[in-house]
Amino acid sequence: MAFSTRIPVRFGDADPAGLVYYPILLHYCHAAMEEFFAARCGTSYARLVSEERLGFPTVNVRAEFFAPFVYGDEVEVEVWVSQTGKSSATFEYRLRRVSDGALCASATLVQVAMRLDTRRAVALPEALRRAFEGSAE
Amino acid sequence: MAFSTRIPVRFGDADPAGLVYYPILLHYCHAAMEEFFAARCGTSYARLVSEERLGFPTVNVRAEFFAPFVYGDEVEVEVWVSQTGKSSATFEYRLRRVSDGALCASATLVQVAMRLDTRRAVALPEALRRAFEGSAE
Amino acid sequence: MAFSTRIPVRFGDADPAGLVYYPILLHYCHAAMEEFFAARCGTSYARLVSEERLGFPTVNVRAEFFAPFVYGDEVEVEVWVSQTGKSSATFEYRLRRVSDGALCASATLVQVAMRLDTRRAVALPEALRRAFEGSAE
Amino acid sequence: MAFSTRIPVRFGDADPAGLVYYPILLHYCHAAMEEFFAARCGTSYARLVSEERLGFPTVNVRAEFFAPFVYGDEVEVEVWVSQTGKSSATFEYRLRRVSDGALCASATLVQVAMRLDTRRAVALPEALRRAFEGSAE
Repeated sequence: MAFSTRIPVRFGDADPAGLVYYPILLHYCHAAMEEFFAARCGTSYARLVSEERLGFPTVNVRAEFFAPFVYGDEVEVEVWVSQTGKSSATFEYRLRRVSDGALCASATLVQVAMRLDTRRAVALPEALRRAFEGSAE
Repeated sequence: MAFSTRIPVRFGDADPAGLVYYPILLHYCHAAMEEFFAARCGTSYARLVSEERLGFPTVNVRAEFFAPFVYGDEVEVEVWVSQTGKSSATFEYRLRRVSDGALCASATLVQVAMRLDTRRAVALPEALRRAFEGSAE
Repeated sequence: MAFSTRIPVRFGDADPAGLVYYPILLHYCHAAMEEFFAARCGTSYARLVSEERLGFPTVNVRAEFFAPFVYGDEVEVEVWVSQTGKSSATFEYRLRRVSDGALCASATLVQVAMRLDTRRAVALPEALRRAFEGSAE
Repeated sequence: MAFSTRIPVRFGDADPAGLVYYPILLHYCHAAMEEFFAARCGTSYARLVSEERLGFPTVNVRAEFFAPFVYGDEVEVEVWVSQTGKSSATFEYRLRRVSDGALCASATLVQVAMRLDTRRAVALPEALRRAFEGSAE
């Protein structure tokens, strides 16, 4: 089962058109990825960044927005890894409106494991690779 | 000549890894689109939203991040429309580091003209279509 | 008992110094106020804004930050109303680090009930006044 | 003459009520402080943070909002230092609407010079103290 988490739309997340400002939807994806690390990878993203100085900057984004989220909605974000490379992982996100289950957005993001102090790509740590590869099952 | 504008990276835009948090790069694209409307379309995006109740929500995003922006960088964002449909426009963005001209990110976003009160797509107003179609020359 | 809610510090909330960027702490206060409305006021803030077109813009802020929050922290925000006027309410916030209970920040915000369509102050609705006045007990 | 800078209200800065979300006003103050460092202190805030590992976290905020900013406004932020202590500086901000000069908000923020690696307060560097003390004249 893919991991999923719920994120309430906050007042400040919606724009003067009443819709969630689209960069915020990618912030929700990042928040869901952080929860995914804590729940499935045996470590928190905060610990990776602070103690191991390892990060996963985004190198590629593809996203589709089918229907807007509005203030008052709650968002269910499903997240799993669909592919891994030597130092990269492709994260899949599906964003649904909790009230009726409607799929409002999907996103595919490629993240690269990066040593933060040198800003160079590094191989995926084995424990993370295993967690990533098992995340879709 | 495509329109371009400069955006300084703000302290709050960068994350604990020292890099600009990637949803912020899409916020920069939106800011550049707002400047593009004011400079090339004979109206401000604010006036469209507030007075004409017309918006351009995003329906599709493709973006590549080649090199990170860091706090202290200034970003030059070039923006033009590469394609128009009945109610949609495809905006192209190129994000360069001002200090050395390096291309750090590119993005292609499809926006749809939407009547904000009904949340329905509408045909592109003719004046905007002309401005969009002339924006790459 | 005052209402309280927990908010995880997100990656994008912290700045290049590794600390939560201080405007974000006020965003946490607003998020806690939204939860307070849902839990204690018999209505959601989203419904007030969208359906009743009533909002509570901030007119006065006093805040003290005793110790920084960092990425990886979880924040417990306690919120109650300490005073009401004809159209205003004074909200108190205490922000604690969940891991050790340390009080890291406090804030006192005065909000004014505003009819959003006219942008004029209005008297506090009676049901809200009662909920506000009972919130500290 | 106190330093001032202009900041356009961006689409994503305004909330579903059409007003600038109030934590964003404090983000504008921080942006103005960053510009103040570059213009008046002989160094950029980015260089202080990245190279000297010196920051100025906020310890106290007092702010009043007299009138809302809305999407489409441009904000003129005036900034100067009204007081210095051994390791602290009190920054004053006045936020005006450019179109008619109306004073919409004022804020007083106390910042403390902090060594980022130890997270301890340090004495204000002399060059900064001189720049701060001359900033109101």
